Amino acid sequence: MSHYILKVDCSDKAGLIYHLAEVIYHHGMNIEKNSEFVDKEFDRFFFRAIISGDVDLEKLRLDLTSMLPEDATIVLRARRKKNILLMATKESHCLGDILIRYHSGELDANIQAVISNHDSLRELTQKFDIPYFHVSAENLEREDHEDKVKALINEFNPDFIVLAKYMRILSPAFVEPYLGKIINIHHSFLPAFIGANPYKQAFNRGVKIIGATAHYVNNDLDEGPIIAQDVVAVNHEYSWKDMQKAGRNVEKIVLSKALDLALDDKIFVYKNKTVIF
Amino acid sequence: MSHYILKVDCSDKAGLIYHLAEVIYHHGMNIEKNSEFVDKEFDRFFFRAIISGDVDLEKLRLDLTSMLPEDATIVLRARRKKNILLMATKESHCLGDILIRYHSGELDANIQAVISNHDSLRELTQKFDIPYFHVSAENLEREDHEDKVKALINEFNPDFIVLAKYMRILSPAFVEPYLGKIINIHHSFLPAFIGANPYKQAFNRGVKIIGATAHYVNNDLDEGPIIAQDVVAVNHEYSWKDMQKAGRNVEKIVLSKALDLALDDKIFVYKNKTVIF
Amino acid sequence: MSHYILKVDCSDKAGLIYHLAEVIYHHGMNIEKNSEFVDKEFDRFFFRAIISGDVDLEKLRLDLTSMLPEDATIVLRARRKKNILLMATKESHCLGDILIRYHSGELDANIQAVISNHDSLRELTQKFDIPYFHVSAENLEREDHEDKVKALINEFNPDFIVLAKYMRILSPAFVEPYLGKIINIHHSFLPAFIGANPYKQAFNRGVKIIGATAHYVNNDLDEGPIIAQDVVAVNHEYSWKDMQKAGRNVEKIVLSKALDLALDDKIFVYKNKTVIF
Amino acid sequence: MSHYILKVDCSDKAGLIYHLAEVIYHHGMNIEKNSEFVDKEFDRFFFRAIISGDVDLEKLRLDLTSMLPEDATIVLRARRKKNILLMATKESHCLGDILIRYHSGELDANIQAVISNHDSLRELTQKFDIPYFHVSAENLEREDHEDKVKALINEFNPDFIVLAKYMRILSPAFVEPYLGKIINIHHSFLPAFIGANPYKQAFNRGVKIIGATAHYVNNDLDEGPIIAQDVVAVNHEYSWKDMQKAGRNVEKIVLSKALDLALDDKIFVYKNKTVIF
Repeated sequence: MSHYILKVDCSDKAGLIYHLAEVIYHHGMNIEKNSEFVDKEFDRFFFRAIISGDVDLEKLRLDLTSMLPEDATIVLRARRKKNILLMATKESHCLGDILIRYHSGELDANIQAVISNHDSLRELTQKFDIPYFHVSAENLEREDHEDKVKALINEFNPDFIVLAKYMRILSPAFVEPYLGKIINIHHSFLPAFIGANPYKQAFNRGVKIIGATAHYVNNDLDEGPIIAQDVVAVNHEYSWKDMQKAGRNVEKIVLSKALDLALDDKIFVYKNKTVIF
Repeated sequence: MSHYILKVDCSDKAGLIYHLAEVIYHHGMNIEKNSEFVDKEFDRFFFRAIISGDVDLEKLRLDLTSMLPEDATIVLRARRKKNILLMATKESHCLGDILIRYHSGELDANIQAVISNHDSLRELTQKFDIPYFHVSAENLEREDHEDKVKALINEFNPDFIVLAKYMRILSPAFVEPYLGKIINIHHSFLPAFIGANPYKQAFNRGVKIIGATAHYVNNDLDEGPIIAQDVVAVNHEYSWKDMQKAGRNVEKIVLSKALDLALDDKIFVYKNKTVIF
Repeated sequence: MSHYILKVDCSDKAGLIYHLAEVIYHHGMNIEKNSEFVDKEFDRFFFRAIISGDVDLEKLRLDLTSMLPEDATIVLRARRKKNILLMATKESHCLGDILIRYHSGELDANIQAVISNHDSLRELTQKFDIPYFHVSAENLEREDHEDKVKALINEFNPDFIVLAKYMRILSPAFVEPYLGKIINIHHSFLPAFIGANPYKQAFNRGVKIIGATAHYVNNDLDEGPIIAQDVVAVNHEYSWKDMQKAGRNVEKIVLSKALDLALDDKIFVYKNKTVIF
Repeated sequence: MSHYILKVDCSDKAGLIYHLAEVIYHHGMNIEKNSEFVDKEFDRFFFRAIISGDVDLEKLRLDLTSMLPEDATIVLRARRKKNILLMATKESHCLGDILIRYHSGELDANIQAVISNHDSLRELTQKFDIPYFHVSAENLEREDHEDKVKALINEFNPDFIVLAKYMRILSPAFVEPYLGKIINIHHSFLPAFIGANPYKQAFNRGVKIIGATAHYVNNDLDEGPIIAQDVVAVNHEYSWKDMQKAGRNVEKIVLSKALDLALDDKIFVYKNKTVIF
């Protein structure tokens, strides 16, 4: 018996759960698990279910479409392992964490390749038999560099692009075609310390807690929808380098958590926020 | 338009959500919010919904009963403010936290009275115009003392009895008629440090984190279903008195959190565990 | 035998600990506890000790002064209970937490009075037999209102002024004479969400963690030296009102923690940061 | 100029800090950083300093010895990179975390080898050019297996032995010669869930928080001095496998934290507890 993921978001109206359950039931499917949420601010309904049974997927999709409001977004597909492409620069803690979890089978994804603007992480990546592409930005206009990266990405056509400490700013034009697909880890508790050198900023401000934020990348730097955040306590004895070291553990855990949520189709994005079941 | 709370737990079977949604829909009710969970270990289905509309409550209950499996437990009632009875001994931090939240209107409950085996908290309680009953245990057999307390409780017939640092052990015979109604705060991260003087135990063991646990009280001391837990970091500089002081903040927050969940009908108990929506 | 607190901060140089210990030893005093820190960025030395014995305090101070660098700040005094003055507006959670801890004897301070720009908290305050001063800002220029508040403060001459959710912005002129004496609780994880309505800001940004920050107030709104911070997890189900409610628990705990540190002379302020032993 | 670590613990008496500072000063050394603690329960004094300068180490040691109480333990040595030996079984998350941190240069230690009772982690270990020794326990008495492991350990003579999810119980006879050198990660918030399958135990008890504990191994299983602990929230939706997955992140972070503290000579052990500066 097959398992399918069904995600719906649409404007809210009375009876939606009943009608969804009805359509699913009449297709002979069972709801293994479902979650539902209504955003009262925008009157938006979110629904996610794991459904099981033998089904004519296209017919089910049609019936859902005709039942749901016109503005509905429907995701309906067999559960499958996703393809992901990693991008990194020089720091290995996030990349390494993903590679170890990949190697042990804990990460539910195929890593297609690592793309980097430096060659520093080649050796580590290739230990795990994953292709490594060094796309240097030297002597290139931003646009030309991004075009090269984009060409590579499009070759792989990944489900998600994971910025595992990729330290170059991506232009809106680059991001546009991959909206909802690029996950970044920012080394601060956003929206605090937007921009460069968050740990130095945190050190200078004398904060007692530092954090990390995983978010989808949109056109607006560090302003994308937040997926996961976590923090760790620091004190006056921490230099900014100490903060950076302490922060690395938070960064890798937060990125892994966000990635797992995305791989499991648990995230909706609406009005620059996430709904996560 | 009235709002009702519906809680169902029963053995799991296919189509439950559909059939629940169907019955609710055909009574002209809307599901404002619902949560669902299946415990795969025991094949048990849990469902909680806030439903709104004009309804014949008894007819709806009947239709639900005839549709659901025979082992179903159904709670269906208008949302209303609950009555609670507090029990305490000498420490004021948990009682005080509840009183302040009551006074500000944040606590969604009527406090009927405080019962204590000491007179120490009378003054604090009466500041808030709440009746205080000192039921001394001196020169009394446990059974006789508990009978006196029980007589008082039964006079008030509270929805919940909150043990806000009530430091006497309750006998199984006392607890029995109030199963699922008594909420206790235990000053350790259960199941660590069961029994007397958890902070001294924690100090002696040299732990680096201490915690508190709010749980329903059952016949088995410190073994009831856990509702909420939280922790705070400590270190070698903490005496056990320091741990106790640090722990008080966790205790009051955890108890308040558990109480709010109970008051909002968000907790199911099954097989000595809680399902919390 | 008496206990004294000694706090020193000065530019760093070799042998400071030895010379400090020497002076203390030759006065026949014992060091019960000491902490030391050197800020490498500014080459600044911080030292705090609890010392015990019978001492000529002025002679000890003189010997310390002549031994230490000229830029040294020396605090030397018998340990004593501090006087504090509370300021609040309408919300009772922080004030109530302090009052309960005061009433139980846990708070190591005398509360001299509560000053408020509203009358809402009078009843609660007076339950605890503490004078309440309502200084309305209605029909007054900011300066005139602040003058009235200042007159009251100066009458009491408190060691610390605690802004327990005092919701008016204080002008630099008001703050100036009390630098290092005013402790504020800000309802966000500073420097995120500076300014008005942090919970609404947090809600709109879709953060997954909210926090609170206790800090000394300086001339620059929300920019004073941070004393303590803590956070709590939230999710998409939280309205901004829910965030506010969850945040209240963090606010009161963080403010109480900061206040306890200040009352225990554990905080140094230097270059807009705190060193806390 | 060289840096030395000095650690002293001895019975407490007046003037210890002065006399320590005096001896250090008269050897022409500067105290870069020092921490001090007195355990009031056992009247035990703990002192750790980083001192710098040119010194006759043996003469300094002699002077310290003759000044300090007879029961003093003195550690005095140049700061140097430590040698560590890892032991693991089949799970790779803790081993992998250490390897990645080793590879990036973040781990301040030489990894001499990995010893395992299985061959599963050979491939991962050898990616990082670290010798892997598979010492199978099959068909061997415990004592014989431990003798083989011990022979290997003694060949390497490591500063620390890190049990990175080594799932065999070590006999007291094995542990004895390495007291204070073996660091273990236990997959629960000790003392909760001692023994086998802590995650299953935690699942069955219905806890809302799970944790991990890094501790020195002594003769008494799961009873050694605790170095570091941390926790993560779980809920009713977590199967015990989910708890195990969530716990892995805590395990690796806690083990790495404890290891860093040990490598930096920051830990004292006394009466089965740790003092950590």
